[in-house]
Amino acid sequence: MEVSLYQRTYMMLNPKIISDDVARFLSEDIGGGDLTALVIPDNTLAKATIMTREATIVCGQAWVDEIFKQLNPNIDIDWQQLEGSQAFAGDTLCFLSGPARALMSGERAALNILQTLSSTATLANQFAKAVEGTKTVVLDTRKTLPGLRLAQKYAVKCGGASNHRVGLYDGILIKENHIMAAGSIMQAVSSARLVSDSVNVEVEVENLDEVQQALDAKADILLLDNFNLNQLKQAVQLTKGAAKLEASGNVDLSTIRDIALTGVDFVSVGALTKNVQAADLSMRVMLEDYV
Amino acid sequence: MEVSLYQRTYMMLNPKIISDDVARFLSEDIGGGDLTALVIPDNTLAKATIMTREATIVCGQAWVDEIFKQLNPNIDIDWQQLEGSQAFAGDTLCFLSGPARALMSGERAALNILQTLSSTATLANQFAKAVEGTKTVVLDTRKTLPGLRLAQKYAVKCGGASNHRVGLYDGILIKENHIMAAGSIMQAVSSARLVSDSVNVEVEVENLDEVQQALDAKADILLLDNFNLNQLKQAVQLTKGAAKLEASGNVDLSTIRDIALTGVDFVSVGALTKNVQAADLSMRVMLEDYV
Amino acid sequence: MEVSLYQRTYMMLNPKIISDDVARFLSEDIGGGDLTALVIPDNTLAKATIMTREATIVCGQAWVDEIFKQLNPNIDIDWQQLEGSQAFAGDTLCFLSGPARALMSGERAALNILQTLSSTATLANQFAKAVEGTKTVVLDTRKTLPGLRLAQKYAVKCGGASNHRVGLYDGILIKENHIMAAGSIMQAVSSARLVSDSVNVEVEVENLDEVQQALDAKADILLLDNFNLNQLKQAVQLTKGAAKLEASGNVDLSTIRDIALTGVDFVSVGALTKNVQAADLSMRVMLEDYV
Amino acid sequence: MEVSLYQRTYMMLNPKIISDDVARFLSEDIGGGDLTALVIPDNTLAKATIMTREATIVCGQAWVDEIFKQLNPNIDIDWQQLEGSQAFAGDTLCFLSGPARALMSGERAALNILQTLSSTATLANQFAKAVEGTKTVVLDTRKTLPGLRLAQKYAVKCGGASNHRVGLYDGILIKENHIMAAGSIMQAVSSARLVSDSVNVEVEVENLDEVQQALDAKADILLLDNFNLNQLKQAVQLTKGAAKLEASGNVDLSTIRDIALTGVDFVSVGALTKNVQAADLSMRVMLEDYV
Amino acid sequence: MEVSLYQRTYMMLNPKIISDDVARFLSEDIGGGDLTALVIPDNTLAKATIMTREATIVCGQAWVDEIFKQLNPNIDIDWQQLEGSQAFAGDTLCFLSGPARALMSGERAALNILQTLSSTATLANQFAKAVEGTKTVVLDTRKTLPGLRLAQKYAVKCGGASNHRVGLYDGILIKENHIMAAGSIMQAVSSARLVSDSVNVEVEVENLDEVQQALDAKADILLLDNFNLNQLKQAVQLTKGAAKLEASGNVDLSTIRDIALTGVDFVSVGALTKNVQAADLSMRVMLEDYV
Amino acid sequence: MEVSLYQRTYMMLNPKIISDDVARFLSEDIGGGDLTALVIPDNTLAKATIMTREATIVCGQAWVDEIFKQLNPNIDIDWQQLEGSQAFAGDTLCFLSGPARALMSGERAALNILQTLSSTATLANQFAKAVEGTKTVVLDTRKTLPGLRLAQKYAVKCGGASNHRVGLYDGILIKENHIMAAGSIMQAVSSARLVSDSVNVEVEVENLDEVQQALDAKADILLLDNFNLNQLKQAVQLTKGAAKLEASGNVDLSTIRDIALTGVDFVSVGALTKNVQAADLSMRVMLEDYV
Repeated sequence: MEVSLYQRTYMMLNPKIISDDVARFLSEDIGGGDLTALVIPDNTLAKATIMTREATIVCGQAWVDEIFKQLNPNIDIDWQQLEGSQAFAGDTLCFLSGPARALMSGERAALNILQTLSSTATLANQFAKAVEGTKTVVLDTRKTLPGLRLAQKYAVKCGGASNHRVGLYDGILIKENHIMAAGSIMQAVSSARLVSDSVNVEVEVENLDEVQQALDAKADILLLDNFNLNQLKQAVQLTKGAAKLEASGNVDLSTIRDIALTGVDFVSVGALTKNVQAADLSMRVMLEDYV
Repeated sequence: MEVSLYQRTYMMLNPKIISDDVARFLSEDIGGGDLTALVIPDNTLAKATIMTREATIVCGQAWVDEIFKQLNPNIDIDWQQLEGSQAFAGDTLCFLSGPARALMSGERAALNILQTLSSTATLANQFAKAVEGTKTVVLDTRKTLPGLRLAQKYAVKCGGASNHRVGLYDGILIKENHIMAAGSIMQAVSSARLVSDSVNVEVEVENLDEVQQALDAKADILLLDNFNLNQLKQAVQLTKGAAKLEASGNVDLSTIRDIALTGVDFVSVGALTKNVQAADLSMRVMLEDYV
Repeated sequence: MEVSLYQRTYMMLNPKIISDDVARFLSEDIGGGDLTALVIPDNTLAKATIMTREATIVCGQAWVDEIFKQLNPNIDIDWQQLEGSQAFAGDTLCFLSGPARALMSGERAALNILQTLSSTATLANQFAKAVEGTKTVVLDTRKTLPGLRLAQKYAVKCGGASNHRVGLYDGILIKENHIMAAGSIMQAVSSARLVSDSVNVEVEVENLDEVQQALDAKADILLLDNFNLNQLKQAVQLTKGAAKLEASGNVDLSTIRDIALTGVDFVSVGALTKNVQAADLSMRVMLEDYV
Repeated sequence: MEVSLYQRTYMMLNPKIISDDVARFLSEDIGGGDLTALVIPDNTLAKATIMTREATIVCGQAWVDEIFKQLNPNIDIDWQQLEGSQAFAGDTLCFLSGPARALMSGERAALNILQTLSSTATLANQFAKAVEGTKTVVLDTRKTLPGLRLAQKYAVKCGGASNHRVGLYDGILIKENHIMAAGSIMQAVSSARLVSDSVNVEVEVENLDEVQQALDAKADILLLDNFNLNQLKQAVQLTKGAAKLEASGNVDLSTIRDIALTGVDFVSVGALTKNVQAADLSMRVMLEDYV
Repeated sequence: MEVSLYQRTYMMLNPKIISDDVARFLSEDIGGGDLTALVIPDNTLAKATIMTREATIVCGQAWVDEIFKQLNPNIDIDWQQLEGSQAFAGDTLCFLSGPARALMSGERAALNILQTLSSTATLANQFAKAVEGTKTVVLDTRKTLPGLRLAQKYAVKCGGASNHRVGLYDGILIKENHIMAAGSIMQAVSSARLVSDSVNVEVEVENLDEVQQALDAKADILLLDNFNLNQLKQAVQLTKGAAKLEASGNVDLSTIRDIALTGVDFVSVGALTKNVQAADLSMRVMLEDYV
Repeated sequence: MEVSLYQRTYMMLNPKIISDDVARFLSEDIGGGDLTALVIPDNTLAKATIMTREATIVCGQAWVDEIFKQLNPNIDIDWQQLEGSQAFAGDTLCFLSGPARALMSGERAALNILQTLSSTATLANQFAKAVEGTKTVVLDTRKTLPGLRLAQKYAVKCGGASNHRVGLYDGILIKENHIMAAGSIMQAVSSARLVSDSVNVEVEVENLDEVQQALDAKADILLLDNFNLNQLKQAVQLTKGAAKLEASGNVDLSTIRDIALTGVDFVSVGALTKNVQAADLSMRVMLEDYV
């Protein structure tokens, strides 16, 4: 049984999610076929190397493996860095070898997913380090790149932060309109408890009075939206551990530690997944006869 | 025949691409169903408004329309800004009305695509304006967010820049390895000409000597990779209009105008589509009885 | 905006789930086409009635509507019973009218889903009534008919019982092997807490000693598997509300009330969804000229 | 060439049907991923056993194999019972070994399909045995669990009964409305003959007069709906082998033998596939280090 | 309820087959989008006409309707010829009107399916006419254009010939190897009878001795492969109506009538569907302002 | 690394296109399952041979390989002719061996794609040979069999002719209506240049005056529709190599050489792909025990 390095996974993704993702990525890039590939003679072999030009957390190895597997099962990949590990400028991420046409056809799709997910993992890692030593956990949000929700959630875990609900189906978050429709926080929470017993009920609150109402309603988590540091501390004191507290709202690397030090359990950060500054990676292909 | 504002399109996208995109976006966010929506009573109606909190080019209206259509065909959307137009902080992008549950279930998916594509359109617009008055056209690349190739290519057009090939299937770009495999630039171009008569043959060159070889091979376009300003000018002089010239390599808003002024036809910019700084948008929902 | 009766929903299902279900049901029944339908002349119109021959909770209207909509959008359906309501032998469930061929082609697919889901809703209703007056909630399990997980979960709600986690993705349930791998209940719960903040952590326990360990580990829910009534009562006393308690194991209509009276919060019943005794429904079609 | 035991097949199913079924079963159970699986350390190996707690015909091995293959191709399965054979309480159905996470993630999906199909095969076997020694063949109907038509038809064969048409596309069954629309049984049959030469034409009749009409029309099979034993005998005498005769209508294990003894060729039984009493199976997983 | 002319259908095709076909046809022709369409200003309207330049049976209207519906639901189509009718050189098949871009984007996909199916319908019509007055029915085979099986089977009916089995799933045809594996024709037929009661059992025979064996085995149909006229007549005499007889093997328009006159029930013709001589159709588009 | 003969490819097709094609071909032919296959005992092995009964260019090997791989990965195929090579009547194309049921189930699907694509390759080869020695290249068009666009384009290359644009997305062809909408050829070309920099801009012209306009507009290619030989020569003289010239309109094997000799660069031929005269191939299966 071969065990690749990347099997140090951070989420137990259904393998079909990765294979469907990859089929889509290859379809948008290759379409009917790679026109330029025909310039390379049949059955030419090549070696290739993926390197990073900047420091990055490595993330996305399972997608890269699947890309080359779908293009040509005869391609071999040998990872030099563990998934989720810290790589530095100049580091080799992996060696590849196999049919030259398929290696070149898959290059861009492989780099695109690797540079996008590594970017997210790296940012998650910076936020996670910023709160190191506190009891606070950094969470992502549903503000993600369309179509990449699960992949980005995976990258967040890979970087050392944690996941808020994945979508509307695996967690309950009661907002202002739900409260208004239900009549009160108490009634909204009670109505939500009937929906499912397997997920937490979280309530978004706007002030300390609502904090108290949510505690009275026995919510599992309170989302403290745009509270300042003083308000956060008061919420922590009021709650006394009776519920988990999550702070959110324009959090950045310069403010997150102070927020964490107020004693909240979670800080959620939209910027983790809605913005991307692609990791600077490159792939170099060498045809066999010219190596 | 109803004609919505967004029908000012910038690419004639196959409608199935948008409906497949949207089905995927909703599937990853809603999964089996929106658990919290049940807190809202059946058939409650609502009005909603999408606004921008910062200046942005508006892009992605067709996806937003499709999101709410797939969730509930009884939702109406009234756009206040033309697709591709410049909106400013505080501007209302659209009004929506219809069943409250579906409006709330679709909110995040709608904002995610709108904030992502508007970000790309806005960046494309900044690059396009930076070269205004020159004859140079700004191009995107294949460095895109996985799964969003066509949507981002559309956003680039929407912002006023133009598209390089969409994928490996609609353009030929001969790189170092193709040349090595073919034996020479001349042979590589000649081999590529046999592939298709409908696409251009572009050759990536690394110095003036290769520029001359590519001209001799009658390539349609030359990709001048990482040439400095002086080299670019020399390439323009050498070429004398016999081929189109494209400059690429670490282009940013501070350098693009000088590059354009060398006389190249195109400047391609990877940062246009590999990075995203999501536009700051929000949606406010008001239940009907409380309006 | 037309609002059909069935919009009294019990889960906010993503509409695509119903349309994909229906496409599959029609594909397996109609395949390339209904060979016998051609015996009916073109464009013959018909009226039809779906009746029940036995008492049943009505469940599955959205699927029936979608079946006929996919076959021919010109078919009208007028429901006579609310989704989730109790119908009796001889009751008309709905009237249909439209093209005769499509009505007859859709008959079996419509009855199959309606009789299956109504069966599950009816059984759920019997279990829910059996614990009426206690504080205990009846839950389903993941023991479902392959391919019908969400539809059956919906039917369970429709009948008045509630849902355990839908799948492995929206709840955490730590079983014997997870505990063994982690080293202890405490370590397993602590490891599970890192996975997600939006779902509950439930632990399956086999005796009172493990109940205490799970309470020490601050699990949200304890699954008391195959506890007898006496053991259940002891578990309730030990727990003192510090966690939710779920009883399971060979529960039937004759035993569930006593189990509920021990004070557990939930009783989960595999038989709700793994067995089906199809409701006895029929559809009668009358061609227009012969009405 | 490896040949597993289950290759004793009872229908030559297109392999894509099984792989599509399984992808759907895994998707509804695992969704994005198995949250609890992460409690198990990476690459832990395990052994597992599927046993039955009651007597059952074994059915569904190809689906179980595909489930684990899709989750992790490194899992091995060693079946101890032939597909379609009779197993008894306490019998081991198969041994499995491989990565612990995938074994545990696939457990429920595997048991669900196996317990559902084995239930149907067992029931089919009881009906088939009830008519043993007569010339009558037991048939299923189109009253099946939505989405499981082909799998259940396979289970019916596996249990020793036989298949009526699979859907509307592979057989012609003329009912009352078709006759009314065509004008007469004669005209309906004659119209149906034009549709296809590869399928039989069956006519549903309600009395002996219609039996005679259907014989005059040279129908291949007559469906005698709700005939009592006396009427069935008369139909057999009248027909004298000129067509096949199929009895249907509220057939159960206590009545089927008498029906068969009237001399009809087929008895069709809706209960075979519209009801399910899941076989009582279980899977036990043992982590490698603890075996 | 609008009833278009083409609803004179010749097979009751599941509508999803047509919509899936069309999605595929548009995807292969339009891909991401019609690049040239952008030359036409937004929202330009147009009228169009599809004409035939040669005599043809008209076939494929449902696909054409679906093509334009998928591209833009605002396009109207007004058919001037009934589906299945004979049109002559110069006849207008239909008028179309709506958005110019969508009309032009759909032109080629619409003509391709119409010219292909009309070709098949026309050929089927010629063969059907060649045997007019005899009792013989012309059948197609499984020798079809890959991916177009059902559409071509529909076209064959449309032209007045009839359908052999659609695929391997809706009819049984015992060939030489099946007989060899079973041991004899008798055993092969008897084994096939167990498979399904809804389909006919046909046996391919090579000489009169095998005809007798197949009759003894009570096969429903005998496929007389490559029999000369004399052998066919002998087979008819030998059979005396005890089974249906199908002649096949290099049949063409010059030989089919003599074959029919031997008294066989069916003649099957591979050339009907494996060859195509596309009908000569054209579409003319006129922009509204220029009409 | 195994390298089959057919890897002499003529287009670098995305492997998913072939596997999706094949899944579709098998689905339409096999549906739920091959009913007749059950007559063959379990696990019977067989050998088979595909031969040609007439001279043909061999085309479609990758589809045949995929067909048998999807049916049963234990089937081996040994090609005796290179993809794209000339085979003669009586030549063996390949030997196959493996499970008998799967070999027989795949026979028709394999022959259908092979006979269709070989037909197209052979025709392409005849046209290519007809212009041998001239500088003219034979092109296909978008007049293809619905659903087989890419496969036929591949066959055209395989036969030695070349590809026009694959669809509306990888080339720009300005026709009469585009010119009318834009106002002039000059304006249409200029508008088209903005769409993409990677594809050529071709203009369809109807007379020499329009040839001059298209040259003035600097179109890359001119499509000379229905020009006679004299007009073609004048167009060549007028153009002097400033653009590529493509002749089209009712070209056949008897006229193409004269057209080529006028000096045009391309001649496009609709008949290449809209008509099919299937190659006469056959497959013979021999069960192992009888070999």
